[in-house]
Amino acid sequence: MTKTSPFAPASLPTLPSVGGVALAAAEAGIRYQGRKDLLLVRFAEGAEVGGALTTSRTPSPAVNWCRSLLNSGRHARALVVNSGNANAFTGQRGVDAVHLTAQIAAETEGCAPEDVFLASTGVIGEPLEVSAFADTLRGLHEAVRPDAWEDAARAIMTTDTFPKLASRTTQIDGVEVTINGIAKGSGMIAPNMATMLAFLFTDAPLPGGLLQTLCTDTVAQSFNRITVDSDTSTSDTVLLFATGAARDRGVPEITDPHDSRLEEFRLALDELTLDLAHQVVQDGEGLTKFVTVRVDGAHTDEDAQAIAFSIANSPLVKTALAGEDPNWGRIIMAVGKAGVEIDPDELAIWFGEIPVAAGGEVHPDYEEAEAAAYMKRDELLIRVYAGLGGAGAATVWTTDLTHGYIDINADYRS
Amino acid sequence: MTKTSPFAPASLPTLPSVGGVALAAAEAGIRYQGRKDLLLVRFAEGAEVGGALTTSRTPSPAVNWCRSLLNSGRHARALVVNSGNANAFTGQRGVDAVHLTAQIAAETEGCAPEDVFLASTGVIGEPLEVSAFADTLRGLHEAVRPDAWEDAARAIMTTDTFPKLASRTTQIDGVEVTINGIAKGSGMIAPNMATMLAFLFTDAPLPGGLLQTLCTDTVAQSFNRITVDSDTSTSDTVLLFATGAARDRGVPEITDPHDSRLEEFRLALDELTLDLAHQVVQDGEGLTKFVTVRVDGAHTDEDAQAIAFSIANSPLVKTALAGEDPNWGRIIMAVGKAGVEIDPDELAIWFGEIPVAAGGEVHPDYEEAEAAAYMKRDELLIRVYAGLGGAGAATVWTTDLTHGYIDINADYRS
Repeated sequence: MTKTSPFAPASLPTLPSVGGVALAAAEAGIRYQGRKDLLLVRFAEGAEVGGALTTSRTPSPAVNWCRSLLNSGRHARALVVNSGNANAFTGQRGVDAVHLTAQIAAETEGCAPEDVFLASTGVIGEPLEVSAFADTLRGLHEAVRPDAWEDAARAIMTTDTFPKLASRTTQIDGVEVTINGIAKGSGMIAPNMATMLAFLFTDAPLPGGLLQTLCTDTVAQSFNRITVDSDTSTSDTVLLFATGAARDRGVPEITDPHDSRLEEFRLALDELTLDLAHQVVQDGEGLTKFVTVRVDGAHTDEDAQAIAFSIANSPLVKTALAGEDPNWGRIIMAVGKAGVEIDPDELAIWFGEIPVAAGGEVHPDYEEAEAAAYMKRDELLIRVYAGLGGAGAATVWTTDLTHGYIDINADYRS
Repeated sequence: MTKTSPFAPASLPTLPSVGGVALAAAEAGIRYQGRKDLLLVRFAEGAEVGGALTTSRTPSPAVNWCRSLLNSGRHARALVVNSGNANAFTGQRGVDAVHLTAQIAAETEGCAPEDVFLASTGVIGEPLEVSAFADTLRGLHEAVRPDAWEDAARAIMTTDTFPKLASRTTQIDGVEVTINGIAKGSGMIAPNMATMLAFLFTDAPLPGGLLQTLCTDTVAQSFNRITVDSDTSTSDTVLLFATGAARDRGVPEITDPHDSRLEEFRLALDELTLDLAHQVVQDGEGLTKFVTVRVDGAHTDEDAQAIAFSIANSPLVKTALAGEDPNWGRIIMAVGKAGVEIDPDELAIWFGEIPVAAGGEVHPDYEEAEAAAYMKRDELLIRVYAGLGGAGAATVWTTDLTHGYIDINADYRS
């Protein structure tokens, strides 16, 4: 129905297994027909978990459920995710649906309901009829396999046009560990994560408190640096599960997030989440351009980020990009409206390597034809110097705003 | 080229003259061909002025010029406005262009350059070649008439599809006075005024300090309550000129903005600016719906306004409106992302008079067919109760987000 993103990968990566993780997906018919929409992930006993959840003031009951489990430091024995229905703003029936889902999974998996993490994505405001897919969920108990990563990534999709998977192999104190991740977008993507689900799995033996910090830190530089339409969802969830299966190979117990033996792991995790975040943007609804916005020379990183998001979220900038129009005046406008200090007389703009504006006016060497040719590329870089000589810098990623976005969102019930 | 807004008035109002005001417009060929793009307004000696200017950190030199004149409490002898070129981010050449324009008008009008108020709207980043239209500007000196209101309103248009005019007759202390206004939109419309110019003219004898307060107050409830695309321009300018021609008829000197003898005048001014603000929204780029968003039950008016703008600016809400889809889940999303306190369990939503959600879930009487029928109207009301029982309330006005918006902005160089 919807055209596949031009940035869809030519082939999907084959993810290695992660000790202590097994997955299965099924067609539960929640909303979509003829595709898998229900995911069960089973963890070996003792798996730890950290997470980052939506800042929305109207969070779904699944988000509230996860928040409560994370706050109590629960271990994880299972993760259940459905697509097609976000079970958000569904009142007591929504809360009951969460409890029932956790209960069913707890029964088959032989654990407490509070060991079952949950996420739902899709339409807001429609009650989730758990009884209608209870048998399908029970059936997943027998179906889990260590290699069902693509199935898992497909089962959590909504308007996504390709499944999002990534994996990194890294080391902790010289011992090899694996991190796998799956994610879904693709509208309502904005800072603070938007309708974005990402689940990360490692065999490293890391305690929950540490995972919480690692998850917060890695989200800050990846999923919180992307925007498709500036809208934030009720259901954003990033969970980082650590089974500890690599413990046998001699990974030491680490509790300090700044322990230098974690450095490689953190780099790999950041690389993995940024990879997934880019995939989310590259499947942004209706996009034809993948756009990096880089701002430096601001007083603080926060100021630079405010400017970068002001550009990345501006409908006038995004429509100009869609039209391949090097309309740098709209970037000036977006910088100006960001509300943070800049020096307009020292402000500078580049499209890729092309100097566009400098010293408060158009660059003397600027030629519209050259910039127009640059705009025809699929991947664009907008670079802004805020003029203050400060160390504040930020990079965010976004899409253009196209007829495709309107087509998808004027009809799709999300 | 661009289709006229479906909300364009069937006929334009004929504005009465305002004592001490004369206007003329001409074809200066700045960007547009075959239409007037340069406006001169002449004021009788002693005219006072107050204003509200863009909060952008990249304001145009014309905005800086007006800000400086307002801060020095200058009287006004002339107003010069051009469309087609915003003369923004044009460096020293832009500053020189402002000085030259004021100089030319000062010479013909026989006043100081600092008595000439200026505004420019159109493309950002291209130097304004004043010498190319200097003779046209000089020629306007002979052409001014007290009744050229429609010409004036047309001369300041950019992507506007109809000229925006309004007039009110009111009283100060029993003496009749007139207020006329012209305005232009129509993209980059957002709180803090966006690419919006509005010029207001009265024959009331009101001092500059008072006009400043009146202008700030009336903008807060009109032009700062509208949004088309959340983008804010470099050039927003609202100026309120008072010639004092009604002084002869015995209007007393008033300096206190809270003087009860000003009450009717303030009401009329608020009515007039709200009328113009609605016209600006009703000519929003590509719109097919005129949407009122009303929020109450928040802790403060500021909180209510944050929620209302979060709804009014949400691309997902606006595309749903374009698709005539009663997708109230997206309103829940927008309320949730506003970042201010609400009670999700008491939150309620109405489309017009139709109860949609209440008590944290869909309203028991809600029927999608009824809501879908409502959505087919041209004018829509989205009403939200924030659930807190507070006195905080706000109303804002917006448009839907359509293919037309993309068409206009992927090509038009603004």
